[in-house]
Amino acid sequence: MAAPLSFTAITGIPAIAAGDDLAPIIANAIEAAGLAVNEGDVLVVAQKIVSKAEDRFADLREVVPSARARELSQITGKDARVVELVLSESTVVLRAVPNVLIVRHRLGYVMANAGIDRSNVASADGEERVLLLPLDPDVSAERLRTGLHTLTGIAPGVIVSDSFGRPWRTGVVNVALGTAGVPSLIDRRGETDLYGRKLEITQVAFADALTAGAALVMGEGAEGTPAVLVRGAQHDAPLANAQALIRPFAEDLFQ
Amino acid sequence: MAAPLSFTAITGIPAIAAGDDLAPIIANAIEAAGLAVNEGDVLVVAQKIVSKAEDRFADLREVVPSARARELSQITGKDARVVELVLSESTVVLRAVPNVLIVRHRLGYVMANAGIDRSNVASADGEERVLLLPLDPDVSAERLRTGLHTLTGIAPGVIVSDSFGRPWRTGVVNVALGTAGVPSLIDRRGETDLYGRKLEITQVAFADALTAGAALVMGEGAEGTPAVLVRGAQHDAPLANAQALIRPFAEDLFQ
Repeated sequence: MAAPLSFTAITGIPAIAAGDDLAPIIANAIEAAGLAVNEGDVLVVAQKIVSKAEDRFADLREVVPSARARELSQITGKDARVVELVLSESTVVLRAVPNVLIVRHRLGYVMANAGIDRSNVASADGEERVLLLPLDPDVSAERLRTGLHTLTGIAPGVIVSDSFGRPWRTGVVNVALGTAGVPSLIDRRGETDLYGRKLEITQVAFADALTAGAALVMGEGAEGTPAVLVRGAQHDAPLANAQALIRPFAEDLFQ
Repeated sequence: MAAPLSFTAITGIPAIAAGDDLAPIIANAIEAAGLAVNEGDVLVVAQKIVSKAEDRFADLREVVPSARARELSQITGKDARVVELVLSESTVVLRAVPNVLIVRHRLGYVMANAGIDRSNVASADGEERVLLLPLDPDVSAERLRTGLHTLTGIAPGVIVSDSFGRPWRTGVVNVALGTAGVPSLIDRRGETDLYGRKLEITQVAFADALTAGAALVMGEGAEGTPAVLVRGAQHDAPLANAQALIRPFAEDLFQ
């Protein structure tokens, strides 16, 4: 019997503030929970704590909506200042209908609202802060991996996770915004099946599958468990960061 | 520390033939592997073995392509007989370009080739057999759940899994075609975040996340491990079968 693949929520991570260094905070929480990082483990962390640590807050009181943002605000019913921030983080607007604004983020993700989040972002003087995605989640993942390596002697794979809606299917699943030390996309082109026929499925979104599974033990809504330790997911495919999971937009059939 | 979520591949499942009863085959494999099904466990099985057991084979030598199938065959480069079967299993063709044929399956899944698969389907006289999706994967899941309940006294959740491509992102992930005894979609509308604000993410594709995770330990390409035992994924949301994961087509923004 192969060892199981396991996902363990890392409890006890405190609220994260701008400027916090995530590596020691997470390493401490892992130790306090009686866990340890082993060679080959993967750490999945919620985008939200990465963005907070990187001070990706924006104050809506300082945002002046453009004419285009006001127009999209009218269509979607969303705050024009939030729409302005969405536009500033995006390259293309794919859909704007009531309650829905789907864009291509500057890093290639096609997602709602460029990942800008109002939930669980408080500020002393009300509800005027929102949180943008990290500047470059692959870099964020690499930084956390390096930090953990320095602290623990082990460099786990790291995935920065966010929840995405999908066309055609209801509900969100989590995907990998950024990764380090993980074969994000496993390319099996050239392999054959049991009968020697060429495989019909040739690329596997390995990091997205890990991220989807990890979300099952992340606290939903609250922030109790924004990090998950994954064990047993080793794969000998070449490492690739999460940009490998972005389909070139020009080749995409659904725009 | 919460118990981890674990995915264990069930090894030793023999090749499945038309007419096989999956419940005793899988129950025996679980026992032989030194595992047991516990209350609250979820069993994820590959679509392929369900389709084989249900004799969803089609013999291409008996298929006469329609004019529409021949036209789409010209565009896509796919076997016109396979295209004819795809059309017979579908309600809408969304995209047809070289090497790609994306349809809405009669059960609502938007997917390539209506899920019709040539890999790992051998026949005595060559390569003329293909395998369609189960007639109704929710019913297949319920049948397996009931069978396992009869045999073991425990009724695990059951998910029938298949790999799907996605727009905008590379690689496949697995999703739930059919489920039984699982809250496939968890509806959190009306809940609030830590600060009392309405949650922005209100529906979670729970069964799809489980299925994506399970695929990480299923044998890829070969059929060594077409079933996975999932432990620790209990959730008290109301049960819903996999039809809950299908977005009503009329409401979809990407057609």
